[in-house]
Amino acid sequence: MSIAEFDVIARYFIQDFPKRADVILGIGDDAALSSVPEGMQLAIAIDTLVEGVHFPKNTSPEDIGYKALAVNLSDMAAMGAMPAWFTLALTCRKTDEVWLTGFSQGLLELAQTHEMSLIGGDTTCGPLTVTIQVTGFVPPDSALQRDGAQSGDGIYVTGTLGDAGLGLASIQKRVTLPCSARQFVESRLNRPTPRLVEGQALRGIASSAIDISDGLLADLGHILSASGTGASLQLDCLPLSKTLCELKPLERAWLMALSAGDDYELCFTVPPNRVVALQKALPIRSYTRIGTIEAANGLRCLDANGRLFVPEKTGYQHFN
Amino acid sequence: MSIAEFDVIARYFIQDFPKRADVILGIGDDAALSSVPEGMQLAIAIDTLVEGVHFPKNTSPEDIGYKALAVNLSDMAAMGAMPAWFTLALTCRKTDEVWLTGFSQGLLELAQTHEMSLIGGDTTCGPLTVTIQVTGFVPPDSALQRDGAQSGDGIYVTGTLGDAGLGLASIQKRVTLPCSARQFVESRLNRPTPRLVEGQALRGIASSAIDISDGLLADLGHILSASGTGASLQLDCLPLSKTLCELKPLERAWLMALSAGDDYELCFTVPPNRVVALQKALPIRSYTRIGTIEAANGLRCLDANGRLFVPEKTGYQHFN
Repeated sequence: MSIAEFDVIARYFIQDFPKRADVILGIGDDAALSSVPEGMQLAIAIDTLVEGVHFPKNTSPEDIGYKALAVNLSDMAAMGAMPAWFTLALTCRKTDEVWLTGFSQGLLELAQTHEMSLIGGDTTCGPLTVTIQVTGFVPPDSALQRDGAQSGDGIYVTGTLGDAGLGLASIQKRVTLPCSARQFVESRLNRPTPRLVEGQALRGIASSAIDISDGLLADLGHILSASGTGASLQLDCLPLSKTLCELKPLERAWLMALSAGDDYELCFTVPPNRVVALQKALPIRSYTRIGTIEAANGLRCLDANGRLFVPEKTGYQHFN
Repeated sequence: MSIAEFDVIARYFIQDFPKRADVILGIGDDAALSSVPEGMQLAIAIDTLVEGVHFPKNTSPEDIGYKALAVNLSDMAAMGAMPAWFTLALTCRKTDEVWLTGFSQGLLELAQTHEMSLIGGDTTCGPLTVTIQVTGFVPPDSALQRDGAQSGDGIYVTGTLGDAGLGLASIQKRVTLPCSARQFVESRLNRPTPRLVEGQALRGIASSAIDISDGLLADLGHILSASGTGASLQLDCLPLSKTLCELKPLERAWLMALSAGDDYELCFTVPPNRVVALQKALPIRSYTRIGTIEAANGLRCLDANGRLFVPEKTGYQHFN
C-alpha cells in the first residue's frame, strides 16, 4: 500500500481534532498560523519517543499516540502552563492504515480531553520515532521553574511513584502479576496522566517544580542543581500504590519509586509560608510531602529509623 | 564515550546561539518561556530529516545541521513570516563529540544569520533523525497562503531550479561534473538559502506562495489544488543555472527543474494589478515569471513551440 505524504496527514490527523478559536490556519500550508491571548506568555516543550528506547516494540499504536502527547503535556503541567496547540513529526517504516488509525485515536483521545488543536505535522519514512511539540500559555512571571527551591521548603509529589517501572517489568516479563495489578501498572506506564490541574493550581504556591520522567532522584536532582541546594528524603513517606507495596522486599519498591522513571507525576517544593495556600489549592489526597530542601548540597535518602539508604541506580540516562 | 543527555544539550547547543529579548527562559527547564510582540500572529512549521531518506549517509554533520534549520526557515519564507525561535529534537546512535560539534556549527551558522534563539531540545538515542520546529511572527491577515491564486495571476519562482537535483546525482555518482560545477550543485543541495527576504517582501503582493521542496510540479500542484485552479508553464522560461544548462538534452534539465525537489526556492503567484508593486519590492534578477494561473484544472507544461511536454515524474513522495 502506498499513500502520498499529504494524504497520510490529511486522512488520519486533520479530522476530529478540536478546533480552537485562536488557530487561524491549521495543517495544510507551509506553516500554521495562530494568535496568542493578550498578556500571555508562551510555554514551549518538545519530546521525542523512539521505538525500542522509550517504548517496547510491541506497544500498541493507541498507547504510543497517547503517550507521545502525554509526556509533553506533563512538561506543560510542570511549568503551570495551559496547553493550546501541538505539532507532530511522525517517522514510520511504512504506511500501515491500521497502525495509523490506532495511533491517531490514542493521540486524539488526550487532545480532546484538553481541547488541543493539532496545527502542523510532518510524516517521514524511517525507523519509528514520534516527536511532539506543545505550545501553551502562562501568565507573566508565574511559570513554575526548577531554580526556585530554598532551604526549608517542603518537597512534594503528586500521585504514586514507581508504578510505571513495575509496568515495564511486567511487560518485559521480569515479574508476574495478577491480572488486575498487571493492567493497573501497565496503564500507568502507557497512559500516564499529565498533572495539568495540579500544575496550574501550584502557580504562586510552589517555589519550583519538575515532572518525573527519569525517576525521582534524577529529576529532583535537576531542581537541586538549578536551585543550588540539597535535600533529604523520608523514604517511608514515598507514596506507593497498593500494587507496588505488595512487592517484597520494601527496598525494591523504593528503588522503583526513586529510579524507574516514566511516572509523569510532579515533584515540587513549597515554602513553609505557602503550605496553607497549598492545602486550599489542592485536595490533600492528591499530593504527599516526602522531604525537605536543605542548604547542604547532595540528596540524602533516609529510612524510617533515620539511616542513610544508598540506591543502586539514580535514574535513566540516554546515550549509555 | 558516554555523556548524559543533559550534558549533550548543554555542551553543544546552549552556548553561542543568539539570545533574543523575547525569550524569557531558554533550554534547561521543562519548557521554554517566551513573549510575542503585541499584535503579531505566530507562524509555526515543523520538518524532519531522516538519514538515508532526506540526506545520504555520508553527508557531513555541518551540512545536516544547516539544512535541518534551512528547510524550516524556507517554510517561514513561504508564509512571509519572520523567524524567531526554534526547538530541536535530535535522535542519534551514540554520543560522538566530533559529529555533534560539526552538527552544532552548521546549525549555529544559519541561526546567527537570522538572529534565532534555540529555546528547547530533546536528545534521544536511535537512528539519526533531526526534527526542528520554528516559530515566527507575521502581521495579522498578511501571511502568504497556498489558496489565493486566481485565473490570470502570473506564476513566479525565485532563484534557479534543478541544481539540488543535479547535486544529488553528483553525490550519488550518477553524473560526473567538473570540480567547480560539482561544488556549486552540491552546495545548492546541502546549503539551500531560505528566501526569507523575498517572502517578507511579497506580503501584500503575492496571492499565494509555497516553497519548492518536492519539485516545482508537486509544489505548484499544492497551490493549484488549494486554490481550485489550473495553470500552464512555459518550460523555456524556467530559470536554470549555467551548470544545469550544460546538461544535454535540455529535457533532462527541465525534468530536474520540474521534479527533483530540494531547491527551497519560492514559487508564488501575483495578480496583474500587483506586478508593478512586485517590481518595486524585489530586484528583477531575483525572480522569474514561468507561467500563468488558468481556470481550467490541471497543469500544462509547454515547450517554446507551444507543444505539450509530459514529464515522466511529478515529484518526490514519501512512503513509496
